[in-house]
Order: sequence, then structure tokens, then C-alpha cells
Amino acid sequence: MIDRLCVIGVGLIGGSVARAARERGLCREIVGVDRDARNLAEATTLGVIDRGSAAVSAAEDADFVVIAVPVGAVGRVCGELAPFWSDTAVYTDVGSTKLSVIDACRAALGTLPPNFVPAHPIAGAERSGVGAANAELYAGKRVILTPDPATSTLACERVTAFWTALGARVSAMDPAHHDEVLAATSHLPHVLAFTLVHLLGRKDEQAEIFQYAAGGFRDFTRIAASDPEMWLDICLANATQILTLLQAFGAELNDFADCLEQRDATRLFEFLSTAREARQRSLERMDN
Amino acid sequence: MIDRLCVIGVGLIGGSVARAARERGLCREIVGVDRDARNLAEATTLGVIDRGSAAVSAAEDADFVVIAVPVGAVGRVCGELAPFWSDTAVYTDVGSTKLSVIDACRAALGTLPPNFVPAHPIAGAERSGVGAANAELYAGKRVILTPDPATSTLACERVTAFWTALGARVSAMDPAHHDEVLAATSHLPHVLAFTLVHLLGRKDEQAEIFQYAAGGFRDFTRIAASDPEMWLDICLANATQILTLLQAFGAELNDFADCLEQRDATRLFEFLSTAREARQRSLERMDN
Repeated sequence: MIDRLCVIGVGLIGGSVARAARERGLCREIVGVDRDARNLAEATTLGVIDRGSAAVSAAEDADFVVIAVPVGAVGRVCGELAPFWSDTAVYTDVGSTKLSVIDACRAALGTLPPNFVPAHPIAGAERSGVGAANAELYAGKRVILTPDPATSTLACERVTAFWTALGARVSAMDPAHHDEVLAATSHLPHVLAFTLVHLLGRKDEQAEIFQYAAGGFRDFTRIAASDPEMWLDICLANATQILTLLQAFGAELNDFADCLEQRDATRLFEFLSTAREARQRSLERMDN
Repeated sequence: MIDRLCVIGVGLIGGSVARAARERGLCREIVGVDRDARNLAEATTLGVIDRGSAAVSAAEDADFVVIAVPVGAVGRVCGELAPFWSDTAVYTDVGSTKLSVIDACRAALGTLPPNFVPAHPIAGAERSGVGAANAELYAGKRVILTPDPATSTLACERVTAFWTALGARVSAMDPAHHDEVLAATSHLPHVLAFTLVHLLGRKDEQAEIFQYAAGGFRDFTRIAASDPEMWLDICLANATQILTLLQAFGAELNDFADCLEQRDATRLFEFLSTAREARQRSLERMDN
């Protein structure tokens, strides 16, 4: 049982952590920290948090601290937490990139504290804001911990227990491997979706194409509804991996275009069939 | 009221036309034509059609003929229909590309008959086969007719009435414009989805990435589950438009990669924000 849970950054992700923790009776009190006063007021009104503060000093007496800000802001938050850092509390984050979070935390604190557990709940976040927070966001979802050799086993166990209680399935991974895997399964698809609607948005202004889009288009572009601020941070934080994949994707797309240019039905059919099989395999492997 | 409806190609699309027509009492009898005997047997067992034939001669006495084969096969079907072509019947198709269908029909018959109405119901088709056919597939969906100047107004009216009775909303468009619009809203997204899973399928073999994919990935790649044979035909039939868009998409992706390479947060944020706004606008415009 957590006495005081502190959630820093009370948006969809942090707000859902708070709602889920409260609904499952994991803590006595929830303190929210957010620089946006309206956001804090809304979170308090909605009962997501018990009280809010604009300053991270509010985390001082918490025994479990969840940093749920865009990954680019984790360093700043860790720096602000430094004067109040408690050896008995556990700190964790929810960022979609892990090497950058570990580096930022280490840079801000001079060292990576053993009680900071880098973590990433893999849960969709096309909606944003505390108003969209819901207690079931993490039920059945994966959470990946990416501990450093310096990270305390006990702290990992407490973070594992926390997410497990929220209904998630927790596993651990090397942070570099995490960033490589997520670049492929999440960051690259997001960039492609953003790029497609960016291109078609201009085309729509000329020719009103969107009214002829159907369900397949809606599904395909859903992730392009995600928060641009959050995705700017993710792109910058995992730029190297994303750039590598963009290059590989561009090469693959050129291969396809070459086959099409040559009207090479055999190779095109093989490409499409192999792709469909891979998609089928992804559904079987995907267990969340 | 149609006396005898003939559906040539009894897969998901043709089977759903048959089911919907029967359920809404639009015809007395439904004849299915398919080269695949097992498919015909399944369609008959399921009650989708009243009787089946491997030969298009079965369309001889039909008064309404729906050609629902992959677009690459429309020319062959029209050629086989030639000896039985009736001036009093109405012929229409369901192909995702229209210029190629019109050309193929004209080539096969020597001229484009006034009672052939090129049409495209815009309905998702990730599943395939007559077993997936359902009477509501077209309810609320758009159907685009792309008549030629030679097409008879009366034939267009009968096809419009047919699709309207199936619950669809029918409009008309120039065939070249249709192919340009659909290349953007459907064909390009499909190619991107196929290309992504093609790339990641190889990566998964090396590093098991798919188990860390989540709901956003599933939605993004859903269209890559579509039938490769159907999509081979669409790609070949609309190759010019698709290649133009692939080039534009590649340029857009390079722009994004350049910004990321330079860690240009301002331009990246603008890109992502503009993209998200376009996606929002697409939802508002999309009325099906």
C-alpha cells in the first residue's frame, strides 16, 4: 500500500495511472503536479487527484512518484526533484523512449539513483488530456521496465507490483533494445501516419479527397491524431533509431515502386503476400 | 424489382451484394458465376446464391449483372460475356480502379456498351471470401459511379437505385478523378501498410518485435491484411497514379527525416501539428 502517490504531469497517461491506482485501492492519497493550473483544477474536479501543485516540491513526502511528462521534460523534472529526492521513495516514469530518459535523469542528478526505475507502459494515447484519463487504460497492456545495472532490485519489484496491480503485464528489457523495438512497432508507424496526412491534407485543399476516405483510412491514420508535443519529444529522443528505420522503409518503398514501374506482377504479388503473412504473424505474436 | 440477378465473382464483395439484394427483396433469383467450384458450393450452401455456374453464359438471361472479380479480370469476363450480352440487361462492376475497367471493357467488347455502368462501392475488404459476406457491408457506404459519355442515363439510374436500396449513398465522378482520389485515400495507404509489415516481418525474424506491438500498430496495419491478389490488380491498374503519389510521399518523408537529422524542433512540431489538423479535418469530411 502506497501512502502518498505523486503523479507529475496529469494528462491522459498520468491521469489514468492516478484513476487506476485509486480505483484499485493502491494508495491513500494522490498528489498531482502540473505546470498547467487549469489542468490541475480539472484533475481535482474530476477526482483524479486529491490535490494539485504547480511545483515538484509537492513530491517531497510521496513514497511513490510517477513522472508522466513528455520525454523531453523528464530531465527538467528530475532536476527540480533533486533537492527533494528521497532515498525511501520509488521513482518511475512512463516515457516511450528509454535511453534518453536514463541519460536525462543521470545528467540532472549527477548519477542515476538506484530508486529510479525507467518504465514504459505500452498503451495507446491518441486522445490526450486528463479528461480522457481512464482507470482501465493499462488493463492487459504491456509495461516494459528498462533498469540500469545501478537500479535497485527492490525498486524494480515495487514498480512491477504497482503496474501488475493496475492490470498490466510487466517485463524487463535492455533500454537500447527497447528503443530499437519501439522505433519499429510504434515510432515509425506514427511518423508514416503523420507524413501521410500531412501530404494528403494539402491534396485535400486542392481536390477534396477526404470525403471519399473510408474506414480503412480512418484506422490507418488514427495514430496521427496523437499529441504533436509528445511526438516531437519522442522523435527527438529516439532520432537515431527512427532515422535508421526511415532509411530502411524508404529503400523498401523504392523496391516496391521499382516493381510497379516495371509492372512486375510476380515480384509485386510476392511482396504483397509476404507482407500479408507478416501482418498475420504480428497479430499472433501481439498478445495485448 | 430484378427478376434474375447475376453476380460474377462470388467473394466477399460479390457475396455481400447477393446477400444484401436478397435480404432487401430486390430480386427473385440470384445466379452466381465463379471459376472456383468450392467457392460456388460454399455460396450455395450458405444461401448466398440460388445456383452457381463456372461459365459466364449463366448470365445470359439475367436482367442485372454485377461483375465482382479483381479489376485485372474484368476484361476477360467482359470478353466471355460478349456472346451473351443483352441490350435490355444492366451491367455494372465493383472495381477499385475505374479507367482500367472502362478500357478493359471497351477492349473486350470493341465498344463501351451504353448499359455497362462502371461503379465502385467504397467498403472495407480486409476479410475475403464468400464466408465473410454480409448483407450490411454497403449500408451507409459511398458508391461512386464513373459513367462514360456513352453510358445510358437509364442504366445509371437503375444502378443508382440498386445501390441505394442496399443502403449506400451514390454519387458520380469522372473516372480519371476517381482513380486520382482513390490512389490517395486508399491505394497509397494500402501500399504503405503492406510495405511496413514487409519490412518489420524481416525485423521480427531477427528480434521478435511484434510481441511489443500494441493497438495502434494493429489499426495501422489492418489494411495490410487485404487480399494480395486483389491488391496486385489494383496496383497494376492504377500504377501511374500510385507511382506519382509514392514519389510525393517519399519526398515528404525525406523532408521529415531532414528535420529530424537536424534536430529542428520548430519545423518538426509544425509538421506534426499540421498533420494532426489534417487528420482531424479528414474525420470531419469523411461522412461514411
